[in-house]
Amino acid sequence: MHAPSTRSEHDLLGDRDVPSEAYFGVHTLRAVENFPITGTPISVYPELVHALATIKQAAALANYELGLLDSERCDAIVAACEELRDGNLHDQFVVDVIQGGAGTSTNMNANEVIANRALELLGHRKGEYQHLHPNEHVNIGQSTNDVYPSALKVATYRGILGLIDAMAYLRAAFEAKAEEFAGVLKMGRTQLQDAVPMTLGQEFSTYAVMLGEDEQRLREAVSLLCELNLGATAIGTGITAHPQYAPLVMKKLVEISGLPLVTAANLIEATQDCGGFVQLSGVLKRVAVKLSKTCNDLRLLSSGPRAGLGEINLPPMQAGSSIMPGKVNPVIPEVVNQIAYEVIGNDLTVTMAAEAGQLQLNAFEPIIAHSLFKSVKHLRNGCITLADRCVKGITANPERTRATVENSIGIVTALNPYIGYANATSVAQEAHATGGSVYQIVLDRGLLSKEQLDQLLRPEMLTTPQPITLTRAP
Amino acid sequence: MHAPSTRSEHDLLGDRDVPSEAYFGVHTLRAVENFPITGTPISVYPELVHALATIKQAAALANYELGLLDSERCDAIVAACEELRDGNLHDQFVVDVIQGGAGTSTNMNANEVIANRALELLGHRKGEYQHLHPNEHVNIGQSTNDVYPSALKVATYRGILGLIDAMAYLRAAFEAKAEEFAGVLKMGRTQLQDAVPMTLGQEFSTYAVMLGEDEQRLREAVSLLCELNLGATAIGTGITAHPQYAPLVMKKLVEISGLPLVTAANLIEATQDCGGFVQLSGVLKRVAVKLSKTCNDLRLLSSGPRAGLGEINLPPMQAGSSIMPGKVNPVIPEVVNQIAYEVIGNDLTVTMAAEAGQLQLNAFEPIIAHSLFKSVKHLRNGCITLADRCVKGITANPERTRATVENSIGIVTALNPYIGYANATSVAQEAHATGGSVYQIVLDRGLLSKEQLDQLLRPEMLTTPQPITLTRAP
Amino acid sequence: MHAPSTRSEHDLLGDRDVPSEAYFGVHTLRAVENFPITGTPISVYPELVHALATIKQAAALANYELGLLDSERCDAIVAACEELRDGNLHDQFVVDVIQGGAGTSTNMNANEVIANRALELLGHRKGEYQHLHPNEHVNIGQSTNDVYPSALKVATYRGILGLIDAMAYLRAAFEAKAEEFAGVLKMGRTQLQDAVPMTLGQEFSTYAVMLGEDEQRLREAVSLLCELNLGATAIGTGITAHPQYAPLVMKKLVEISGLPLVTAANLIEATQDCGGFVQLSGVLKRVAVKLSKTCNDLRLLSSGPRAGLGEINLPPMQAGSSIMPGKVNPVIPEVVNQIAYEVIGNDLTVTMAAEAGQLQLNAFEPIIAHSLFKSVKHLRNGCITLADRCVKGITANPERTRATVENSIGIVTALNPYIGYANATSVAQEAHATGGSVYQIVLDRGLLSKEQLDQLLRPEMLTTPQPITLTRAP
Amino acid sequence: MHAPSTRSEHDLLGDRDVPSEAYFGVHTLRAVENFPITGTPISVYPELVHALATIKQAAALANYELGLLDSERCDAIVAACEELRDGNLHDQFVVDVIQGGAGTSTNMNANEVIANRALELLGHRKGEYQHLHPNEHVNIGQSTNDVYPSALKVATYRGILGLIDAMAYLRAAFEAKAEEFAGVLKMGRTQLQDAVPMTLGQEFSTYAVMLGEDEQRLREAVSLLCELNLGATAIGTGITAHPQYAPLVMKKLVEISGLPLVTAANLIEATQDCGGFVQLSGVLKRVAVKLSKTCNDLRLLSSGPRAGLGEINLPPMQAGSSIMPGKVNPVIPEVVNQIAYEVIGNDLTVTMAAEAGQLQLNAFEPIIAHSLFKSVKHLRNGCITLADRCVKGITANPERTRATVENSIGIVTALNPYIGYANATSVAQEAHATGGSVYQIVLDRGLLSKEQLDQLLRPEMLTTPQPITLTRAP
Repeated sequence: MHAPSTRSEHDLLGDRDVPSEAYFGVHTLRAVENFPITGTPISVYPELVHALATIKQAAALANYELGLLDSERCDAIVAACEELRDGNLHDQFVVDVIQGGAGTSTNMNANEVIANRALELLGHRKGEYQHLHPNEHVNIGQSTNDVYPSALKVATYRGILGLIDAMAYLRAAFEAKAEEFAGVLKMGRTQLQDAVPMTLGQEFSTYAVMLGEDEQRLREAVSLLCELNLGATAIGTGITAHPQYAPLVMKKLVEISGLPLVTAANLIEATQDCGGFVQLSGVLKRVAVKLSKTCNDLRLLSSGPRAGLGEINLPPMQAGSSIMPGKVNPVIPEVVNQIAYEVIGNDLTVTMAAEAGQLQLNAFEPIIAHSLFKSVKHLRNGCITLADRCVKGITANPERTRATVENSIGIVTALNPYIGYANATSVAQEAHATGGSVYQIVLDRGLLSKEQLDQLLRPEMLTTPQPITLTRAP
Repeated sequence: MHAPSTRSEHDLLGDRDVPSEAYFGVHTLRAVENFPITGTPISVYPELVHALATIKQAAALANYELGLLDSERCDAIVAACEELRDGNLHDQFVVDVIQGGAGTSTNMNANEVIANRALELLGHRKGEYQHLHPNEHVNIGQSTNDVYPSALKVATYRGILGLIDAMAYLRAAFEAKAEEFAGVLKMGRTQLQDAVPMTLGQEFSTYAVMLGEDEQRLREAVSLLCELNLGATAIGTGITAHPQYAPLVMKKLVEISGLPLVTAANLIEATQDCGGFVQLSGVLKRVAVKLSKTCNDLRLLSSGPRAGLGEINLPPMQAGSSIMPGKVNPVIPEVVNQIAYEVIGNDLTVTMAAEAGQLQLNAFEPIIAHSLFKSVKHLRNGCITLADRCVKGITANPERTRATVENSIGIVTALNPYIGYANATSVAQEAHATGGSVYQIVLDRGLLSKEQLDQLLRPEMLTTPQPITLTRAP
Repeated sequence: MHAPSTRSEHDLLGDRDVPSEAYFGVHTLRAVENFPITGTPISVYPELVHALATIKQAAALANYELGLLDSERCDAIVAACEELRDGNLHDQFVVDVIQGGAGTSTNMNANEVIANRALELLGHRKGEYQHLHPNEHVNIGQSTNDVYPSALKVATYRGILGLIDAMAYLRAAFEAKAEEFAGVLKMGRTQLQDAVPMTLGQEFSTYAVMLGEDEQRLREAVSLLCELNLGATAIGTGITAHPQYAPLVMKKLVEISGLPLVTAANLIEATQDCGGFVQLSGVLKRVAVKLSKTCNDLRLLSSGPRAGLGEINLPPMQAGSSIMPGKVNPVIPEVVNQIAYEVIGNDLTVTMAAEAGQLQLNAFEPIIAHSLFKSVKHLRNGCITLADRCVKGITANPERTRATVENSIGIVTALNPYIGYANATSVAQEAHATGGSVYQIVLDRGLLSKEQLDQLLRPEMLTTPQPITLTRAP
Repeated sequence: MHAPSTRSEHDLLGDRDVPSEAYFGVHTLRAVENFPITGTPISVYPELVHALATIKQAAALANYELGLLDSERCDAIVAACEELRDGNLHDQFVVDVIQGGAGTSTNMNANEVIANRALELLGHRKGEYQHLHPNEHVNIGQSTNDVYPSALKVATYRGILGLIDAMAYLRAAFEAKAEEFAGVLKMGRTQLQDAVPMTLGQEFSTYAVMLGEDEQRLREAVSLLCELNLGATAIGTGITAHPQYAPLVMKKLVEISGLPLVTAANLIEATQDCGGFVQLSGVLKRVAVKLSKTCNDLRLLSSGPRAGLGEINLPPMQAGSSIMPGKVNPVIPEVVNQIAYEVIGNDLTVTMAAEAGQLQLNAFEPIIAHSLFKSVKHLRNGCITLADRCVKGITANPERTRATVENSIGIVTALNPYIGYANATSVAQEAHATGGSVYQIVLDRGLLSKEQLDQLLRPEMLTTPQPITLTRAP
């Protein structure tokens, strides 16, 4: 028989057995027991583990330079952090994504994994903390309250860059279609009613422009995340940290990460403030709103095939029905709509959590992090999917759309400056009542000559502003 | 020159001059100064003033019966309350709809107006509180913390009854149209893609059914509001109230109001709890969601007139454009959509406010009340407007809708049980690729005879479940 | 070298190779490729797989009885469904929890897994659909549009029952504490200001009452989910389904599931309507709001240990800080707060998705399902965690809380009926200004005798309504 | 008897009598009838009327310069607009704040009032549109779809400037208090548990810093509103507008308004896009979240007077209870909390409305405008009220707060670098168990000398980062 393969660890609450092979320790163990909520561990966000390791590495180097950590321990901690940054040992980050305690469990999970891996590198066994301790060495000069939000910001920063790339990729797909459809004349619609002519290319260009603007908004929002409270320790007064620690750890962090990070001007404010997350979440909501509107449009324009608008065709991606043979549905825009609804819901969660902060700390940053990470990931996947599996394969039905222009009442608007609003209204009314064409009615009434009409109703006259070439009666 | 026409009143904070003609007093005066937020006074909600007066009247009668109030003062208070219930003096309810203080200012506004009017009825002058005092006589056995939420519930209860009536009125309009359009064959759509046939009458009946269900949900939700915490006084322990006061005031209140009100079983819980408001707000959100969906459908079905679905016509209510002659827009459904978005936003406000309650009281009931009152009023107006100015005047385009069925690919679904899913899919694909008709392709392929096809594709076969009359190969 | 271990399957879009060992088929394969959004498969919701299998089993039995399915195939399908209901093959449910297509991919995933398992049971190989086909046999008389929402309702129904149990468990914990703390006198607080006395037992009883009411609300909300649209097929007209199918499949389903399910009166309305989900989500939001309020209270009452209210002690569950030795935080209430914020956000997602339904279907039910399943699961886990890891271990600090009553100004309220509001206000002001005690000031002023005071300020006089035993001047 | 005092006007739907004295006309009349929703007219937003008049004035000048309007009519229109900008005739803006039609009714209301006032100035009677027509002269080159959102942006821009001023005013009040309280030592708290020392001045400075950051965010957000789609006309193609109109009207508008406005690069995108409003609403939500957190803190810190934290005193603004004599409540922070909840709800309304835009236009801008106008106004009033009626009058209880530091366990954190985390934890545990002081226990255990302790625990050592002056054992 084997002895139980555990080691004993001690904390404030007493002794506990930890599995021998675990790199995490007693604090993590208790957290896992305390938060059996989602079943999803924080390792599902590798960028968070990466960011924690980067900060811990920077802290070790700063503390070494300040004489608070010897070179041997520093080297071991740095090596352990590098392994985490390379993607190793992520399975040791086991606390639930929804956790109480303002991120302390996540921070302690990192401290313990790094300490135990460093111990191994130093030739010791896991748990022999007398040689290198999660709190007294890995965590020197640090508090969850500065490390955790800083790690969230670094992780989110990288995530947003990935999202911006995905949006640019989707934007390029819309731009290509805008060019392809530049000559496809169609009716523009306002309030779902026929309005005035435009081209399908113009319509698709708006989706590209919209994305470009949102990319810019994300760049602005993410720049707020570059301001960290590292060095604040517990509440921003920097208690227990060396006065030179804050500038030094930031210097190291910038070197290691290559990111444009800075130390917040007021560390007490920065420690309790979730404004940067709220701002970013608000912008993600904006992205969601506009992506959803775009997908609504794609679904509307491709409605049919026979009893809908039928202006465009989305590429068929799967059979659309278990009962209706041959039916194909706009499943890709639909999934993006749903991502958008989720992101908008996540924004509310972030809002509630941010508002609930009290005094010197917001205890609810874990749910803020969870919500933001989900939104970023799903939006990114949604943009790539929308580009690859929908937009790139869209085709137009130019004959159908041109016919709606020629048959439209709305073109009477173009004659407005020449025949006057009252005449134009009367023509529109007759067309509507009789089913007749605007062209013929204007001609029949002698309001304009055939030549004038042909000139005024050329597509290029309709879709861009034109000099007013005829004189109407004053 | 006239001496300044004021009277002096005294409270905890000192003396203040109140306009002589004002029925409100010093507490109200300070509240008006303290809350210059919206500029909208609580008098915009006459049902709230009515409810406050009703409760104050019941309290006076109960306290008289308990020997805590003499008959002369009781009679005067009752008479003043009756005047308020008749709609008089509402302009004296001047505190802002958004106010701090958990409704204390509203309750004191009521106490002061009633006291001063009662003083006049007793032959005294306003402000001579030694004869009849806002706190010591009008407010006996009461606290804002039981009177205010009770008044909100009574007021909301009446408001919801009005909303239910408006919904029933709208429902009747949809039911009339469902009957009128019973014979209008059209394509049903799922995911905006042509699906299978139905009648426009069936479509409109769903809007009626939906409303009927929501009326029922409102009835259930509003029944929760019948549970009041009258008698709880400050925190639910009933401190300062006579032990017989709680049952007695409820008896009086039921007599006067005619409403099925009861006293909550646990007054401490009932005093801090906003659950009934949250529940009701959630149901109002549900009503909004479904009304919005209905209006989205009406706008979609009436899109056109030429480049849209064009299945129905909404009655034109106003010129739709300052630039496009003859354009008419679905302005009535649009305004209802906007009401729905507001109601959904109001629900979030209610949610935030309810969550923010602390310990023995929720201090944020005024914004809950303001949000609910707005939602109820706007939904009620929206339903009536939608019925009168839109639904009643809707007409159908039966030729157009029938043509979409005859021309559809989706009718192949009806043949599914006879020719099999694989054959049906192949037929659908050919129809889609060639633009051909399902009828002809099935005939050409010899899958069914003309007689069989004609039988299977009769409208009544398509729009209700039918016995499967042909045998297909197993 | 081995030949690739795949089988070829065919659908509307052409041929695809499916892994030989997969029980799912080509439709599922395409869906997995089309929706690479969250990386989380629907198998994380076993109750959904269970519900789908239950419905498919009922359908097979109904179709057999209607003569539309032979006994051999029926038996095989039933056996396959039973295996799923026993928890087998759940790993074959691989489509993403966020998916386009109104649930078609989930339904086809079920059809394919059941068909292939049934084929094996019949002695065939997976993919030999000529013997038993996912659409033509497993899916007879069904559409995603009736099967999927019905499965969601059945799954949610069971989930809610579990949540109600967890809430009752938490309620019992609060009730036990209410009894334990029945004699602990303390100050009640309104608007965070000292109000009037109560007992800690009264305070804890409110949390229990609140939970009991919410359990009742959930029972009402979940009863709406018992109304299914099975038999509606594509849009509610029942196209392709046998006229006897709808009642028969419901009879079978009730027998198998033991649940009080019924067929909706109007199947067209029921097919497009998400009202039941919106209602339930609204009630879950209410549960979240009140749980969050309760946790806010627990955190507030246990604030300290020295510079806070310090009325109760939460059991320490883990070290609270990586930097502050000995600090213990209210991590369990905190995690429940975060669950509440998530649930409130999920409710918004459900609201957005429900509002976005169009015409005969809501295409966004998958995100509704995902949101509801998460909310139910997390709330359930949160309630159990809160009971076991927090409430059960709470202790009181009765000396401290009693001292705050004796030292309070608020007890003057109890004297109000005897010394009058004006005198009481004056006493309170003096106590506040001088730091003196109400008791002594009243005595010094001769407003009441020592005997009267001692009688009026006995705890039982303060915490429940009492006969007014002294006469004050009118 | 007098003849009815009306004039007859004509539109698309026929003839209607308009009151003779009305400056608005038939379009406005129909709109008033069509939207009986809130009872609140758009005149409650004078900045909107001002912005509309400014744009109409710029348009007249541009059209005159382009030869499309003669000088006499131009002068009259300009003069009428100037009157509106001076605040006259605002009572003629009578359409409901919640209205269908994408703002057409608001635009027509402006066109009609301006036309009729201009007619009067020209010596004509109201309604003699043959001389000067609302559409054909006032509205030349314009559509609701460019004028209305442009007016909203100009109006909102000005509103936000006012809000920023109010925030700066509140910030100054917090800054003054931060300075006043610089020497007030107190315990900082994280997760409502005693953490480490700080000063009350540091605490108040965070509120000022937070406001300063939010002012900056508003400046960024509002800059997005400077991009207008004037010249886009119906859908952005500029149909009916002179090609030089767009640049020219912008030049005039910048001259008249003095605002840094520009024409959007892509007018089609700009016409359908509500991104700027969503962004601004998101930032307003952020402002609300942080103001609410600040008010939560103020209420918490001032809880008491005896059974709460009692660290600060808010100035008493009104009696706090109708039943509890002497009670004073934090009514000003409470009203700001409620404003915050409203703003967060309004943001959701904006989000829903923005997402609902379809194709070339968002028809729901009126509710977006209504929501934003309310949020801006209420936040502005809230900030000023909070500054004047609360923050300026706050006083501290320095003896009480200092005692909590001296009595605290949390100061052990400051000794952490000198006695080690393990020793510090043990000291904390003993202090907690025995009620003893950290100072004495450390002394008794001989961990540090009295001199060392006195040095390490000086306030300035505790509240800012300090050189670590003692060596601890490695």
